[in-house]
Amino acid sequence: MDVLRPQVERSLGEFVERKLPAGGDAAFAPLRTAADALLSGGKRLRPAFCYWGWRGAGGTDVPEIFTAAASLELLQASALVHDDVMDKSDLRRGMPAAHRRFESMHEQSRWQGSAQQFGEGAAILLGNLLLIWSGEMWRTSGLPPASLEAAQPVHDHMRTELMCGQYLDLLEQANGENTFESALRVALFKSGKYSVEQPLRLGLVLAGEKRAPWMDELCTGYGTRVGIAFQLRDDILGVFGDPAQTGKPAGDDLREGKRTMLVARTLAAASPGAAQNVRRLLGDPGLDESGVATLRGIIEDTGALRECEDLIGDYMGEALSALDESPVTAEARSALTELAIAATSRKT
Amino acid sequence: MDVLRPQVERSLGEFVERKLPAGGDAAFAPLRTAADALLSGGKRLRPAFCYWGWRGAGGTDVPEIFTAAASLELLQASALVHDDVMDKSDLRRGMPAAHRRFESMHEQSRWQGSAQQFGEGAAILLGNLLLIWSGEMWRTSGLPPASLEAAQPVHDHMRTELMCGQYLDLLEQANGENTFESALRVALFKSGKYSVEQPLRLGLVLAGEKRAPWMDELCTGYGTRVGIAFQLRDDILGVFGDPAQTGKPAGDDLREGKRTMLVARTLAAASPGAAQNVRRLLGDPGLDESGVATLRGIIEDTGALRECEDLIGDYMGEALSALDESPVTAEARSALTELAIAATSRKT
Repeated sequence: MDVLRPQVERSLGEFVERKLPAGGDAAFAPLRTAADALLSGGKRLRPAFCYWGWRGAGGTDVPEIFTAAASLELLQASALVHDDVMDKSDLRRGMPAAHRRFESMHEQSRWQGSAQQFGEGAAILLGNLLLIWSGEMWRTSGLPPASLEAAQPVHDHMRTELMCGQYLDLLEQANGENTFESALRVALFKSGKYSVEQPLRLGLVLAGEKRAPWMDELCTGYGTRVGIAFQLRDDILGVFGDPAQTGKPAGDDLREGKRTMLVARTLAAASPGAAQNVRRLLGDPGLDESGVATLRGIIEDTGALRECEDLIGDYMGEALSALDESPVTAEARSALTELAIAATSRKT
Repeated sequence: MDVLRPQVERSLGEFVERKLPAGGDAAFAPLRTAADALLSGGKRLRPAFCYWGWRGAGGTDVPEIFTAAASLELLQASALVHDDVMDKSDLRRGMPAAHRRFESMHEQSRWQGSAQQFGEGAAILLGNLLLIWSGEMWRTSGLPPASLEAAQPVHDHMRTELMCGQYLDLLEQANGENTFESALRVALFKSGKYSVEQPLRLGLVLAGEKRAPWMDELCTGYGTRVGIAFQLRDDILGVFGDPAQTGKPAGDDLREGKRTMLVARTLAAASPGAAQNVRRLLGDPGLDESGVATLRGIIEDTGALRECEDLIGDYMGEALSALDESPVTAEARSALTELAIAATSRKT
């Protein structure tokens, strides 16, 4: 991944500079600053899965694949900006969320009208720009037209799936069954698929002269499973993660009341009294440290935390077997093993 | 236009049915209903400008051009949904705005959490789906790859321009100069260009074997001017329009405090006392009928209304001369004349 990062970052930097030049119209400077902040961090997982899919199916190490893979970071950045508006989150990776940046700009400039409305409006537009650009950067990567044409239906499907998954998430929070199965379905559609399986599939399809059955087997056997394990790890970090690493206050997912797989397991295993406590505390915006500690205690005592850790282990085991059985190149097999571990490890 | 409408509507209906089948997953039914409502009305101006650009440059009457042209309605629908979230508008074409639909669904179902937040979140996602689909429908229209490739940079540019224009609009409302020139710039970028000039250019470029100088001359000479006149008419209808026609309460733009070209002309021409009145009343969410009447009176008394009507006439005159001088086919010339009139007429 460390080989990939500088290439991905250079491609992103060049593309954004072309769209919104730093020395261009001053009116757009705040959009550029917010875009740069969103694109500056992260593990670059999605480009890495795409790149190693490409290499695994025999693609060579050409600059065009870095551009195509890097475009997935624009899609991710778009989803993050809109997510933070929808969740009314204040922080993203320890920095103010985009809508809060725009809101502060409005307040500090003492402009007319509602600063909050300005902030949210500007963030919606920034998210739209990033979404549009992700498609444009992908298409203009310079890869052969036949490769791009073969992968385009996957690309289109991935984006519709992501938006529909986020909509399912809203429904699940508002009126879901809150079972492990319903939380898993949301997690897969909203995040798992477009974080692992689809980027990998894009790389494989781009490189493959024709789509072979083993590609779909690898996407399901390895991609789907790593995606679920990735999301389970995210559920755990949202409750037990170190704020210095997650960039969010401790227990933030609890305060937001997210109906995760971890919460579903907890509710299923809790005594009636403990379950009542969970329902009472979960989603309380004023939840303090002692409330977070109570919830953490219940999640550990019910065995839900242990169960989710075990599930991560099981999914990883199955994923790595599927990877072993696939005919990807040795170099890609080793990189995809490392990537799966990095995506699901205890460190963010 | 009446020839075009059924074709555009059939293409849209088929595309949306493919993406979100009416008999598909019940969870997505509200997205489908909201999309159908957004796509059910309107003058289909953008597809018409695109179609007549294509025919004007010698394109033949093939079904693929209807699909490509119809995709512009998806982009427009996306912009409307997000606009209504950003402006917190209640109505769109006399019906509840998309975010209000989702909000009502949440309230009536007595779901958990904030109904407003659910409504806005769902509408942001619906807008994203429509935005993604507009690009997909365009690319998969079936037009020759070389045509699509030639037009793609125009398509990409149009969408970035639209989002940047909407951002300029937010800035103008918050801290603009509120001069006629600044309002004109916003109107062009936010609406005029993607309503007239760019759809026309897309059609011309799709059809032209190579891009000829007369095409750009027509886009500027006719397209830009019709776009400005279209926006001036929109400014006037926002203040003086009949609610039965506009689908919005009378004087809604005044209540929202929109800094239009019409308002800029009024402020420039008003006496200090009248200008102070305008500034006090404009943007008052509780503005009643008598307040609307006062503002309308000032807009008429300053001569601003007359000036804007005259400007529409001037721009239309110049636009139709430019059209006369261009080598488009006779049939296209006649259709583009009718279209310019329809886009700028007193009836919505």
